[in-house]
Amino acid sequence: MNIIRTTSAMTDWSRRLHREGVTIGFVPTMGALHEGHRALIRAARLACDAVVVSIFVNPTQFGPAEDLAKYPRQLRLDRALCAKEGVDAIFAPPAEAMYPAGFQTIVAVPTLARLWEGAARPHHFQGVATVVTKLLSLVQPDISWFGQKDFQQAALVRRLAKDLHLPGMLRVHPTVRERDGLALSSRNVYLSAQQREAAPVLYRALQAGAAAIRGGERRGERIQRLMAQTVKAQRSVTAEYLAVCDPSTLELLPILQRHAILLGAIRVGSVRLLDNMPVAIRRKP
Amino acid sequence: MNIIRTTSAMTDWSRRLHREGVTIGFVPTMGALHEGHRALIRAARLACDAVVVSIFVNPTQFGPAEDLAKYPRQLRLDRALCAKEGVDAIFAPPAEAMYPAGFQTIVAVPTLARLWEGAARPHHFQGVATVVTKLLSLVQPDISWFGQKDFQQAALVRRLAKDLHLPGMLRVHPTVRERDGLALSSRNVYLSAQQREAAPVLYRALQAGAAAIRGGERRGERIQRLMAQTVKAQRSVTAEYLAVCDPSTLELLPILQRHAILLGAIRVGSVRLLDNMPVAIRRKP
Repeated sequence: MNIIRTTSAMTDWSRRLHREGVTIGFVPTMGALHEGHRALIRAARLACDAVVVSIFVNPTQFGPAEDLAKYPRQLRLDRALCAKEGVDAIFAPPAEAMYPAGFQTIVAVPTLARLWEGAARPHHFQGVATVVTKLLSLVQPDISWFGQKDFQQAALVRRLAKDLHLPGMLRVHPTVRERDGLALSSRNVYLSAQQREAAPVLYRALQAGAAAIRGGERRGERIQRLMAQTVKAQRSVTAEYLAVCDPSTLELLPILQRHAILLGAIRVGSVRLLDNMPVAIRRKP
Repeated sequence: MNIIRTTSAMTDWSRRLHREGVTIGFVPTMGALHEGHRALIRAARLACDAVVVSIFVNPTQFGPAEDLAKYPRQLRLDRALCAKEGVDAIFAPPAEAMYPAGFQTIVAVPTLARLWEGAARPHHFQGVATVVTKLLSLVQPDISWFGQKDFQQAALVRRLAKDLHLPGMLRVHPTVRERDGLALSSRNVYLSAQQREAAPVLYRALQAGAAAIRGGERRGERIQRLMAQTVKAQRSVTAEYLAVCDPSTLELLPILQRHAILLGAIRVGSVRLLDNMPVAIRRKP
C-alpha cells in the first residue's frame, strides 16, 4: 500500500494507472475511519481495479470555534484498516501541501450551502466544495464514494461535480448504524456514556417521521412536529432542526408528493450529531 | 475538423484521445478570432498532437451593462480560420449546455479578482474563473494557451489552476499587435476610424514607462505619472488605470526591484481597451 504525501505524487500515481487502463475508485475521508468508511472502501474495492483513500482533516471546512484541533486523528489505525481492506494507496497530504502560501481560490455552491448545516456552520460547505474540487482534480477517479450520513454534503458534492464537470461518477453509500440505530460518525467518540445512551433518539425521531408517512401523513409540518416531539422526550438532547425536504434542492416540502428526505441534527452536550432518512411514497394501485 | 456541441461529447473526445496516448493542446476563446488567437493556435499546433479551440461567449463574465449581446460572433469565419490552422476540434457549446437549469457553483480567486479589471467589472473574474475551471475539467488538456494581452486574466488563471490542481500546463503567449502598436482584441471592431487612430496611445504610454525604467527610474509613482501624461496628450482617450505592478500578485510596486508588469486600461468613447508590458531590470554588472 502506497502512502502518498504530495499532490504531484498523487497526480503521477493516478496518471500512471489510467495509462495502464486501470480504473480508480476513490473514498475521500477525514480519517478516524470506522465501519461506515469500511463500507465505502469495500464498495470501491468491488467496483474498481484500484482504490485510493484520502485522509485529510480539511481546515477550511471548520469554523474558528469548531473542533479542528481536537478532531480525532489516528493515522496508524487508519492505515491498518485500509491495508486490511486491500486499499492500494492512501493520500494523506500535510495541510501545507493542499493550501500552500498564496492559496486563495474558493469554490462555493451558494444555494445548497445556505440551508441546514450551512446555517449552523457558515463557511463549512465552501471548505467542503473547495477541497472536494481539489481532491477530484488530483485523484481523477472513475468513481468516488460519499456516505449518506452527510446527506447535504453528498447533495452539494453532486451539484458541484455536475456544475464543474469534475471527473468520475459519484455514488452515495447507505448509512451504517450501531445496533440501537445511532449513525456511525467519527464524532461519536466525543460522547460520554450517558450521552451515548441518549443519542439514538435522533434515529428514532426519523423513524417516527417515516412511520407517519407510511401511515398516510403528507403534511411536512405535521411530520416535523412529530419528530420534534420524539426528540423532546429525551431531556439531555436539543433538536437543531428536523425537516422534511426535497431530496435534491433540500428545500422544505410543505406537502409530500413522491420522494422526500427527512433531515435531522441534534446537540447532545457540546456534540452535534446528524442523521437522515430517505422516504419514497408508493402510489396506491 | 470536429464541431463539438455538448459537454459529454467533449469529455468523450478528450478521453478517447488520451487513451490513444495523444496529447491535447487547448486554446479557450470567445470567438471573433484574430491574429492573436491564430498565434495561440499555432503554438498549440507545434506543441501537441491534437488541438481543440473552444468558442464560447461566456455570459457569467459579462456585467449587466456590458456588451454580451453585441459581442462579435462570427462562427463561420472562426471555423474557417481553425480549419486552415489544422485545428482538430472546435468546442462550441450553447449557453444552456454550460449553464443548465439548477446551475449554482461559483469559483472565485478573490484577492486577484479585486484589482484593476476586477474593480471596474465586479463579477467579471468570478465568471472567468468558473468557466475556465469547467473548460479545463471538460477538455483535460496537456497544455492550455492564454494570451498575454489579458495579463490579469492569465495571472488569475495561473493561480486558479495551481490552487485547484486543474489539468495540464498553462502557457501565456506574447501579445500580437497592429503595426502602430495597438494590441489585437476582438473589441477593436467597435472603434470608429477616429477612435482607431487614437487607440495606440496606450501602447505608447507603456513604452514610455518602459523607457523610463531602462533609463534608471525605479519609483513606481513616477513611472505611472509619465504614462498618464502620455495618455492625457490624446484628448479623445481617458485613462482608467496605468499601474506598475508585481507580476504575480498584481499589487502596486512602490519601488521596482527585479520584475514588474506595466498594466493599462483606457476608454476610447464607450470602448475599453487593455494592454500591458512586462519589464525586467538588468542588474549592473
